[in-house]
Amino acid sequence: MPNAAATRTAITPGRNEDFPEWYQQVIRAAELAEPSDVRGCMVIRPWGYGIWENMQRQLDAMFRATGHRNAYFPLFIPLSYFAKEAEHVEGFAKECAVVTHSRLEVDADGKMKPSSPLAEPLVIRPTSETIIGASYAKWVQSYRDLPILINQWANVVRWEMRPRLFLRTTEFLWQEGHTVHETEAEARSETKRMLDVYETFVRDHLAIPVYSGEKSESERFPGAVQTLSIEAMVQDRRAIQAGTSHFLGQNFSRTSGIQFQNREGKQEFGWTTSWGMSTRLVGTLVMAHGDDDGIVLPPRIAPTQIVILPITPKEETRAKVFEACDQLAQKLRANRYVDLPIEVEVDRRDLGGGVKNWEWIKKGVPVRIEIGPRDLEKDSATMSRRDQPVKAKELMAMEELVQHAPGVLMSIQKNLYERAKKFRDDNTRKIDNKEDFYEFFTPKNSAKPEIHGGFALAHWNGSREIEEKIKDDLKVTIRCIPPGDRAEAGRCIFTGKPSARRVIWAKAY
Amino acid sequence: MPNAAATRTAITPGRNEDFPEWYQQVIRAAELAEPSDVRGCMVIRPWGYGIWENMQRQLDAMFRATGHRNAYFPLFIPLSYFAKEAEHVEGFAKECAVVTHSRLEVDADGKMKPSSPLAEPLVIRPTSETIIGASYAKWVQSYRDLPILINQWANVVRWEMRPRLFLRTTEFLWQEGHTVHETEAEARSETKRMLDVYETFVRDHLAIPVYSGEKSESERFPGAVQTLSIEAMVQDRRAIQAGTSHFLGQNFSRTSGIQFQNREGKQEFGWTTSWGMSTRLVGTLVMAHGDDDGIVLPPRIAPTQIVILPITPKEETRAKVFEACDQLAQKLRANRYVDLPIEVEVDRRDLGGGVKNWEWIKKGVPVRIEIGPRDLEKDSATMSRRDQPVKAKELMAMEELVQHAPGVLMSIQKNLYERAKKFRDDNTRKIDNKEDFYEFFTPKNSAKPEIHGGFALAHWNGSREIEEKIKDDLKVTIRCIPPGDRAEAGRCIFTGKPSARRVIWAKAY
Repeated sequence: MPNAAATRTAITPGRNEDFPEWYQQVIRAAELAEPSDVRGCMVIRPWGYGIWENMQRQLDAMFRATGHRNAYFPLFIPLSYFAKEAEHVEGFAKECAVVTHSRLEVDADGKMKPSSPLAEPLVIRPTSETIIGASYAKWVQSYRDLPILINQWANVVRWEMRPRLFLRTTEFLWQEGHTVHETEAEARSETKRMLDVYETFVRDHLAIPVYSGEKSESERFPGAVQTLSIEAMVQDRRAIQAGTSHFLGQNFSRTSGIQFQNREGKQEFGWTTSWGMSTRLVGTLVMAHGDDDGIVLPPRIAPTQIVILPITPKEETRAKVFEACDQLAQKLRANRYVDLPIEVEVDRRDLGGGVKNWEWIKKGVPVRIEIGPRDLEKDSATMSRRDQPVKAKELMAMEELVQHAPGVLMSIQKNLYERAKKFRDDNTRKIDNKEDFYEFFTPKNSAKPEIHGGFALAHWNGSREIEEKIKDDLKVTIRCIPPGDRAEAGRCIFTGKPSARRVIWAKAY
Repeated sequence: MPNAAATRTAITPGRNEDFPEWYQQVIRAAELAEPSDVRGCMVIRPWGYGIWENMQRQLDAMFRATGHRNAYFPLFIPLSYFAKEAEHVEGFAKECAVVTHSRLEVDADGKMKPSSPLAEPLVIRPTSETIIGASYAKWVQSYRDLPILINQWANVVRWEMRPRLFLRTTEFLWQEGHTVHETEAEARSETKRMLDVYETFVRDHLAIPVYSGEKSESERFPGAVQTLSIEAMVQDRRAIQAGTSHFLGQNFSRTSGIQFQNREGKQEFGWTTSWGMSTRLVGTLVMAHGDDDGIVLPPRIAPTQIVILPITPKEETRAKVFEACDQLAQKLRANRYVDLPIEVEVDRRDLGGGVKNWEWIKKGVPVRIEIGPRDLEKDSATMSRRDQPVKAKELMAMEELVQHAPGVLMSIQKNLYERAKKFRDDNTRKIDNKEDFYEFFTPKNSAKPEIHGGFALAHWNGSREIEEKIKDDLKVTIRCIPPGDRAEAGRCIFTGKPSARRVIWAKAY
C-alpha cells in the first residue's frame, strides 16, 4: 500500500508502461466494477454505478428538455421480427443470446436441464429497432400521431468474445432513443440534434472533447442510411466511439409496417431515427482522465464531490473533530455547484488516515478535506484537489473553504477538460502523404511507443478498398467524416484522387 | 367517445360489472401499457412508465436514506449457481427462460436458426440471490466488511402462463435489495425495517393502506426462513401482495459461500436478507383508486399533477388564451407540493376541448384547469379535481388558484387514502366460525356478487392442511399473519384448536 510520503504511485503499472493493464487496475482500485463468473458480463459496484446513475440523470434531463419521454419495451425479440431487416440481422447474428426453453427439469441422471422448448426462439435484444417498431406500427396512423419521441433505459446483450470492463461487455446498460417523423428532413434534423446533445453532454459533463461526424459506409449501424458519431481520444491516443445517432430512413418502417396517412391523404412510411449511449462512457471516463493514482472524476459526474477525512490521533479530541467535520459537511451541502447539489461524505471509518486518503484518491473524488485537532484551534482545514499532485495541499479557513468550494469544483471541471483537450490536440496531426501516415501509426521505436499514434486528419477519396487495406495494414479505421461545413479540397493521400475533406483516422476501442 | 354532457362513464364495462375487463380497459384508455407480441411481455407506454419512474425516484430516496446504495449484477445466472439452493431452484424451475445459444445462423433451407450452443445454459434471472451471492462471497472477508446494503433496479423474467398487464407479466421491472449482516438479530431487523419502508411508501405515496405481517410457511419465498409482506385490498375486494421482505437466515450464504471472520476470529456464514417491489404496484394503483372514468392518480405519484386546457373557440383570442395558460403554468410550477416539484402541462393540441378533457380524466391527472376567453376578462379559471365527479367544477381567481394548488393536491392525496381505507375497513370482517367464513367467500347471490368477499380476520391453528383445504374449496389464502404485538388468544375456526392470533384471509391476485 503506497503512502503520502512515498513517490510511488497507487496504480502499478503506470499508464505509459502498460495501458490496458493500468486500466484494469484503476477499475479494481476504485471498486468500479469487476468481471463476473458469467463470461463477458460484469458486476457494476456501487461507486461505478453511482457514476452511471449521474450520467443517466443528467442525460435524461437533456432528453426531456428536447421533448422525449421514456418508455419500456420487451427484452425478448421473436426471431422472425429480428430477421425482417436483412442487413440488421446480418450485423447482429454472430453475437445473439438466444432463449430456447421456458423451464428447467431434472433429467434421469438427476441433472438439471432446460425443458419446454419454445415454438419460436427469442433473441435477447442487442438493440430494439425491430421490437419497438412493432409497437410504433400500431401507434402511428396519421401524421397527427407524429413525431414519436421516445427513449428507453435498458440492458442489452451482444455476445462478446473479447470482453473488456465497461468498454465491451456481453451485457451492458444503455439508453436507446427511437423516433418516428413525418418527413425525411425532420428525421435527419433529429439525428443531428441528438448527436449535438451527446457532444454537449460529453464535453460539459464528462469534460471530454470529441470530434463529431458521419461514419463511413463500412462502419454504419446495420440497417441505417446514415450513422453519426462522436469520437473521444483517450490517453493511449486511441479513439473511443462515445455515442452514435442513426438516420434510418424508411428501412425499419418498411419492415415493421410503420405507415401513416400524410397531409395529402396518402399512405407513407415513417422516417425513423435511433441513438444510443452506454456504460461504455464509464470506461471512456477512466481512460480519458485517470492518472497513475487512479480514476479522476469530473465534479459534475462524481457520486461524491467532496470527502471530509477526520484526523483523530487522540481519543479525547475525537468527538470534537467529528463534530467539526459534520458542521463543515452541512455548510458545504447547503451550496450548489452549477445546477447540481454538492454531495459531501464524512469518512468516519476507523482506519488509518493515510489508508483512507489513498482510497479516495483512487476513487477519484474531486476534493478531499482533512481536519485534525490542531485545525480546530485555528478554525481551518486542509484541502486537496484530485487534479493536482497528491502532496499539493492548501490550508484554508473553514469559512473560506465553504465559500470557495463551488468555484474549486468548477475549476477542476474546467482543468480536466482543458487537459484532455490539450492532449487530444497535441496528438492530432494533419497528414498529407501515405508514408507519414504509415509512420504515424507504426511504433518504430519500441522504447518510446508513446510518441506515435493519435488522430490523423487526412484526405481520402471515399473508397472502401482503401479503408480495408488500412485496417488490415495498421488496424486503423476512419473514426468519422467531419460535416460539410469543414470542407477542404485536397487529394486522397493513398490514391491521389480528389477529396472534399479530411477524415479522422485512428486506432479505436 | 363519451362527452361531458352525457351521464355515461368513460370506461365500459364499469368496475361492478366486470372488474377484470374494466381493468384492461382502464389501462388501455390511460395508455399505460399494452400486451406485446412476445407472449406474456408488455410494452410500458410513456404515461405508465412515468408513474413507474416516480415510484422509483421516491423509493430510491428512501433506500438511500436508510443507508443503501445501488449496484448492478448480471442478467444471466449459470444453471449450476441457480441449482445450488434446492428449495430456491424448485420454486422457480417451472418459469425460467433459458439461454442455450449465442449465435444465429442460416440453415440449409435458408431459415434462421440458433447456433453455437453454450457449454452451460444460462437462466435469465427470476431473482438474483444466487448471482449476487457469488459477488458477496468475494467481497466479504471480515465482520469489518459488514453490513453490505445494496439495491438493484432491474428487469427479471418469470415465465407466465396467465399474464395480466402489470400484475403478472413474464418480464417485469423491479428493485431487489440484497443485504448481508454480522448477526441474525441485525438481519431480522433489516427485514422488518424494509417492510416498514414499503408500508410507508405505499401508504404515503400511493395512498393505499396495507396490512403487514408474516407469510405462512406455504407462501414463503423459496429458500427463505421468513417472508414478510404488505397486502393491499383493491376494489373487487381481493388482496394484492404489494411488497415482500425476506429473512434468508444463512441458507443462501451457505450455498454461495458468504463467510466472514467474526469478532472472535472464527469463520461464520453471513446473515442475509432480500426485499422487492415491482411494476405490479402500477396495477395495484389502477385497481385501488380507478373509477368508471379511468385511473385516478395520487398527486405524489402522477407524472403530471396539473393539466391546463386552453379553450379557444375563436381564432382572434387564441394567442391571448395560450399566453394566460403559460403564465399560470409558470406560477404553478414555482410552487412545491410536499417536497416535490409540481409538474404542469399546457395541452395546446388542436383537438376539441371535450376530447382533451376526457383524455386527461382517463389518464387520472389530479387537477384540470380550463381557461377560455371569458375567463381572461375576469382573471379567473375553472378547476376540476379528479377525485370528484366530472361535472363538479370550481371557478376561481387565478391568484387564488396558484395559492391553493399545493393544498388541493394534498387534499386529493388524503381523500384517496381515506376512501381506500374506508373501503378496505368496510370490507374487512372478524369471522368467528367456519360457516360464516365459507359464506363470506361464496357469492351466493350472483346478481349482487359485490356484497361478498374481502379480508376475513379469523383464528387459525397453524396447520398447513387447513390452508390447503381452504384454498381448494374457496381459492382463499392466508395473506399474512399480523405481528406478535397484535396477539389475541382464541380458537381456530376450522379445528377448534387454540390460536394465538387472527390471520388475514382473502382471495388474491
